[in-house]
Amino acid sequence: MTLFTVSVALDGDRHYDILIGSGLLAQAGERLKALGGNSVAIVTDSNVADHHLDTVVQSCKAAGLNGHSIVVPAGEKSKSFAHLEQLCADLLEARIERGDLIVALGGGVIGDLTGFAAAILRRGVRCVQMPTSLLAQVDSSVGGKTGINTAFGKNLIGAFHQPSLVLADTDSLDTLPSREFRAGYAEVAKYGLINDTAFFAWLEHNHGAVFAGGEERRQAVRTSCAAKAAIVMRDEKESGERALLNLGHTFGHALEASVWYDGGRLVHGEGVAIGICLAFRFSAALGLCAAGDAERVERHFKAVGLPTRIQDIPGEVSSPEQLLVLMAQDKKVTQGQFNFILAHGIGQSFIARDVAVSKVEEFLQQELQEAV
Amino acid sequence: MTLFTVSVALDGDRHYDILIGSGLLAQAGERLKALGGNSVAIVTDSNVADHHLDTVVQSCKAAGLNGHSIVVPAGEKSKSFAHLEQLCADLLEARIERGDLIVALGGGVIGDLTGFAAAILRRGVRCVQMPTSLLAQVDSSVGGKTGINTAFGKNLIGAFHQPSLVLADTDSLDTLPSREFRAGYAEVAKYGLINDTAFFAWLEHNHGAVFAGGEERRQAVRTSCAAKAAIVMRDEKESGERALLNLGHTFGHALEASVWYDGGRLVHGEGVAIGICLAFRFSAALGLCAAGDAERVERHFKAVGLPTRIQDIPGEVSSPEQLLVLMAQDKKVTQGQFNFILAHGIGQSFIARDVAVSKVEEFLQQELQEAV
Repeated sequence: MTLFTVSVALDGDRHYDILIGSGLLAQAGERLKALGGNSVAIVTDSNVADHHLDTVVQSCKAAGLNGHSIVVPAGEKSKSFAHLEQLCADLLEARIERGDLIVALGGGVIGDLTGFAAAILRRGVRCVQMPTSLLAQVDSSVGGKTGINTAFGKNLIGAFHQPSLVLADTDSLDTLPSREFRAGYAEVAKYGLINDTAFFAWLEHNHGAVFAGGEERRQAVRTSCAAKAAIVMRDEKESGERALLNLGHTFGHALEASVWYDGGRLVHGEGVAIGICLAFRFSAALGLCAAGDAERVERHFKAVGLPTRIQDIPGEVSSPEQLLVLMAQDKKVTQGQFNFILAHGIGQSFIARDVAVSKVEEFLQQELQEAV
Repeated sequence: MTLFTVSVALDGDRHYDILIGSGLLAQAGERLKALGGNSVAIVTDSNVADHHLDTVVQSCKAAGLNGHSIVVPAGEKSKSFAHLEQLCADLLEARIERGDLIVALGGGVIGDLTGFAAAILRRGVRCVQMPTSLLAQVDSSVGGKTGINTAFGKNLIGAFHQPSLVLADTDSLDTLPSREFRAGYAEVAKYGLINDTAFFAWLEHNHGAVFAGGEERRQAVRTSCAAKAAIVMRDEKESGERALLNLGHTFGHALEASVWYDGGRLVHGEGVAIGICLAFRFSAALGLCAAGDAERVERHFKAVGLPTRIQDIPGEVSSPEQLLVLMAQDKKVTQGQFNFILAHGIGQSFIARDVAVSKVEEFLQQELQEAV
């Protein structure tokens, strides 16, 4: 079975590996042991615990590590101050010290919450990400962004805290609900749309195999991790290019906020899928991108079963004004100007720093009128 | 009037100035303006607001800055998750963005809480420290340590977040309650005891003038800031030498915890004063330091009116066992070993990494028996 390694090298001699392959969770203990430290706190959620916690715990035990398990409730609501405080208390109770390791075993919520707790516990404890969802494997576990949500928006409180190791066990994707896998796929396609036309074309031909599992799936995860790592290495703290990774996210976050983060109506990857389609149609409306490219993006997302329009979200639709307010509170705003990721075409995304609010409003009105 | 500048140069081209002098708060606006950014959030507490908030607000207004004032309750209890969450919400409400500035105007509590909020708001916003207490001017505002307390101990949750500027207006020390000034003085004397015998001797002769105010006081603040900056520049994240700054703090934090952080019984600087005396007497008991040096330290602290013995704390005295448990939860513990700052003499402190728990217990028993 193939084992892929993507290395992330950062300034100040910081570097870590992302391992992608089958059966990695069963090797967790020996790989943690190799990093040093006596104690390991394994943080997971109630869903993931059923599938994978025992595998990791047994592996730690076999490696002679002193392991503690902490289970937090599943769901986006755990990315809150209240759960952060509880998790920090649990980690202190477990006497996790500066030289120890904190493991985030789960999807994006667990990775973001646990990574943030590791960043602030005793002013910084090492963290190992063991992403079990597609979204976490190709996006949130890589690059060091951690955080929680507030009433003002998603991820507005957080830290940059690079992991010491990422273990992406692709077997864990087999136990994912299909809706969750599909949502994560939006982030995979995103890498093609940002700057890799060939990868997008490959996905257009191979998405069936990627959804079915096996070598194509591992290949897609590897290509995605490598794409993200390359950008993070060039711009760790998002002073420039890293903002490209937010393609579809300004619209997407506003849509998530507009349904109060109700995962029954919209999960993050679905918001990103709609957001990416909106970003391409907005680019086309501004005359920056061929209308055919926007249609091609939408066609691919439809082919895999992802939503592509605001109207695809079940329930009441927000007004353009509401969405604008939510977008303005998003942290991709500098000095009151909209910071947007737009595209000149597939694989040709770019950062637009001075998008007029009136243009966005006009576009959203048009989008929502088409609903009627 | 003398204006002192201490420059702190850190790796990755990061550097900032600490300005020490008279009338600096009235110049706050122009100095903030020079850093760039449109909006400034000034965070202070209810006590400090009465004395200094208007000066800073007017100065910002005169400089054409968009200023927001946020007042948090005075006292150590504000270094909590609940107040951190509220402060973050207030900063988001004020629409503080990544390029803006957050000002911490106040003592150590305000500096630690505000600096931490700045570290995690939108994953990092610049912070300017305007310390108004002696403790904050000579210690907590310099070096980037920020954080809050938990039920498990002080400062166990936090971040390293270097300020972009420190303005230490020595006039603000005139409005300090004398007990608070005296407590801060323990941290001043600490710098002499760590590695500057001449400074300690200077303090023995000039402490009267330092307490009275004027040039000697500014000189003492400058020497203290320069001493701290020198250590922080060599070891920003406390992987080694920076631990020397914890002289007296392992005992001190345990004593503060033992009175449940009741400032009526013991404030931080008083805990440090007793802690430093204990560290010197413990060093003498272990045969590492001349008993005469420990006596000289105690004599000086008594001369300025600081407590020097556990029994000087009003109310019920903790048992050696209780203090040991509290010390073990302190973050200056590595792999279960006590990490202690001990001394070979005045100005000759060192990091002792393998102090046996039994030796500490024996020493504390002896200290507390002398009470009876």
